[in-house]
Amino acid sequence: MYYLGVDLGGTNIKAALVSESGEIVKEAAAPTNLPRTAQEVCDDIAALCLQLSAREQVAGIGVGCPGTVCDGVVLYSNNLDWHDFAMADYLQTKTGLPVCLGNDANVAALGEALAGCAKGAQSAVILTLGTGVGAGVVLGGKLLTGYTGAASEAGHMVIADAPDAPLCTCGRRGCLESLASATALIRMTREARRTHPESLLNTLAPTEADVNGRTVFDAAAQGDAAAKAVADDYIHHLAVGVANLINIFFPEVIGLSGGVANQGENLLKPLRAAAAPMVFGSAFAKKHTRITTCTLGYRAGVIGAALLAKQEM
Amino acid sequence: MYYLGVDLGGTNIKAALVSESGEIVKEAAAPTNLPRTAQEVCDDIAALCLQLSAREQVAGIGVGCPGTVCDGVVLYSNNLDWHDFAMADYLQTKTGLPVCLGNDANVAALGEALAGCAKGAQSAVILTLGTGVGAGVVLGGKLLTGYTGAASEAGHMVIADAPDAPLCTCGRRGCLESLASATALIRMTREARRTHPESLLNTLAPTEADVNGRTVFDAAAQGDAAAKAVADDYIHHLAVGVANLINIFFPEVIGLSGGVANQGENLLKPLRAAAAPMVFGSAFAKKHTRITTCTLGYRAGVIGAALLAKQEM
Repeated sequence: MYYLGVDLGGTNIKAALVSESGEIVKEAAAPTNLPRTAQEVCDDIAALCLQLSAREQVAGIGVGCPGTVCDGVVLYSNNLDWHDFAMADYLQTKTGLPVCLGNDANVAALGEALAGCAKGAQSAVILTLGTGVGAGVVLGGKLLTGYTGAASEAGHMVIADAPDAPLCTCGRRGCLESLASATALIRMTREARRTHPESLLNTLAPTEADVNGRTVFDAAAQGDAAAKAVADDYIHHLAVGVANLINIFFPEVIGLSGGVANQGENLLKPLRAAAAPMVFGSAFAKKHTRITTCTLGYRAGVIGAALLAKQEM
Repeated sequence: MYYLGVDLGGTNIKAALVSESGEIVKEAAAPTNLPRTAQEVCDDIAALCLQLSAREQVAGIGVGCPGTVCDGVVLYSNNLDWHDFAMADYLQTKTGLPVCLGNDANVAALGEALAGCAKGAQSAVILTLGTGVGAGVVLGGKLLTGYTGAASEAGHMVIADAPDAPLCTCGRRGCLESLASATALIRMTREARRTHPESLLNTLAPTEADVNGRTVFDAAAQGDAAAKAVADDYIHHLAVGVANLINIFFPEVIGLSGGVANQGENLLKPLRAAAAPMVFGSAFAKKHTRITTCTLGYRAGVIGAALLAKQEM
C-alpha cells in the first residue's frame, strides 16, 4: 500500500507517491502560481495526485500546508492568503481519497523524525532555519499537535524580551525567529558589513543585495573578525533557543534544516559547544540530546505528509 | 484496587492511599529530617507506605521526588543532596510493592491534569510558582518525560537573554524562574520598597524580611503605584513564559500553582490580558488555552504520584 504526500509551498506544489517505510516511488511538481483561489490551487494538487496514483494502490493523501491548520481546515495561511478553507474535504471530493492536513513545518519534521535524521529516535524537535524559524516536535513517533491549533510555533518563543530586541514578523520582539532565522542572520550580516567597512564581508558581498546566509560563514572561515563576531552572535541566539527546547522536551534529537543548516559542522560544532552549558542538569544526565542536521532535504515535506496520512488512516 | 502516592519534600514526606479515580482514602506524613542518608529517608517512606497499605489491596507505589529522576534512579537532587540513588529498587525491597519515580513537579502536574484543574482536558502545562518555577506537561493523559532526563524544566527556559538579566539558581541569566518565581517577585518587591520610600510597601513590610509573595498584591489593591508597577512587571514576565509555552504546546489548559497562584483572579485576570496578544495566531484560532489556577493544593503531589503508579503498572 502507498500514500501520497503533498508539500504545498508559496512557489511550488511538490507531490510524491511514498511507500509505508517512507521511500519515494514517484515524484511530481507544479507551480503554485499565486495569487490564485484555494480551489484553483487544489484542483492542481488533485491533478498531481491522480497522476501519481494511477494504477497504484493508494490509501490516502497527506498534505503539508503553510499556516495554521486544524481538523482538515486551513484556518489561516499568510503565504497563500487563505482563510477558513476546508481543504481536506475539497481535495477528498476531487480525488476520491481520504485526505489529512498538517502544518508544513510539522509535517516535514515528521518526515525527518520517522525517516530522516531522527529515524528510530524516541523523540525529536526539528527546527527549520529559513525565512522564519519553523518547528515540529515528534514524541513517540507522533507529531505534537495542540488543542487550540497547529503546534508547535517554537519560532515564536521569546528568548530576548526587551524593548530593543529585533522585531519579529509576528509583531513581537525577541522571538527565536527574529534572532535565529536565515533572515536574522542576513540582517546581522548587513549591519556588520556597514559598521565594518574593512571587513571581508564587503568583498564577498559588494552590495547589500549580495548578502545571503552563507556570506558570514564564508568570511569567518577566512578569519574575518567582524564576520566571526556575527557568526558567534547568531550561534549564541540559536543555542539559547535550542537549549530552551532541550530543557522543555529533553528530546533524543534536535535536527536543524533550512539554508543555514547546510553549514553542517561549521554550524553544529560551535552550536553544540554553546548549548551544552545551557542545558539544565546536563552534568548529571546519563544521556544527552544529539544536535544534528536533517538529511531528507526538500523531500522531508512530501515524505512526512505521506507518513502523516499513514498514521491518520 | 488502590495505589500509594508519596510526595517527598525537603521538609516533609507526605503519603496517601489513593483510589483509581484519584481520590484520597487515607493520608499520613512524617518529617524528612534532613540531613539524613537516602536509605534512612526511604526507611521512613517504607514505614508510611506499610502503615497506609495494611489490610488494603495496593497495586504499587508512586513517588514524586525533587530533582532529576530517570528509570527509578534519583540522578541528582540538590534539595536532598542525593546522587545516583536507586530509590525505586530500594523502596521495592523494603515494601514488597512495585515502585515508580517521577520528578515532584511533574508528578504534581499529573495529579492536577488528571484529577484537578485540567481534569478531562486533552493537554495541560502546570507551572508551580514557588521558590523556583516547576513545570509539568501532560499530553493525552501522559506526563511528558524526555529521553535524556526528567522533563520538563520549563523554569529554565530563558525568556530575557541579556547580560543584566537576573541571575538564576541554575547559573544562567533571564530564565523564567529568575523572573516569575515567588523568589523573583519578593526580590522585585524589596527593590521597589527601597527605591520608593513613599510606597505603602514599606508600611505593609516594615523590614525586608517581612516581604512575601502577597505584599505587592496587597499594596497594589490599595492603589499603591510602586506596587502596581512591580505587579505589572511580574505579570508581564509570567505572561511571556506562559505565551511561550502556549506557542510551543497549544495546550488546552495552563494551570498555575504555588503561593503566588493563591492570588487567584487578581493574578489571572491581568495575566490573561497580557498573554493573549502574545499567543501566535490567536486571532485565527477557534479554540484558546484556558489559563487557570490549580485546585488540589498540596495533595496534587500524592494524588499525581499514585496516578503515575497506576499508569506505569
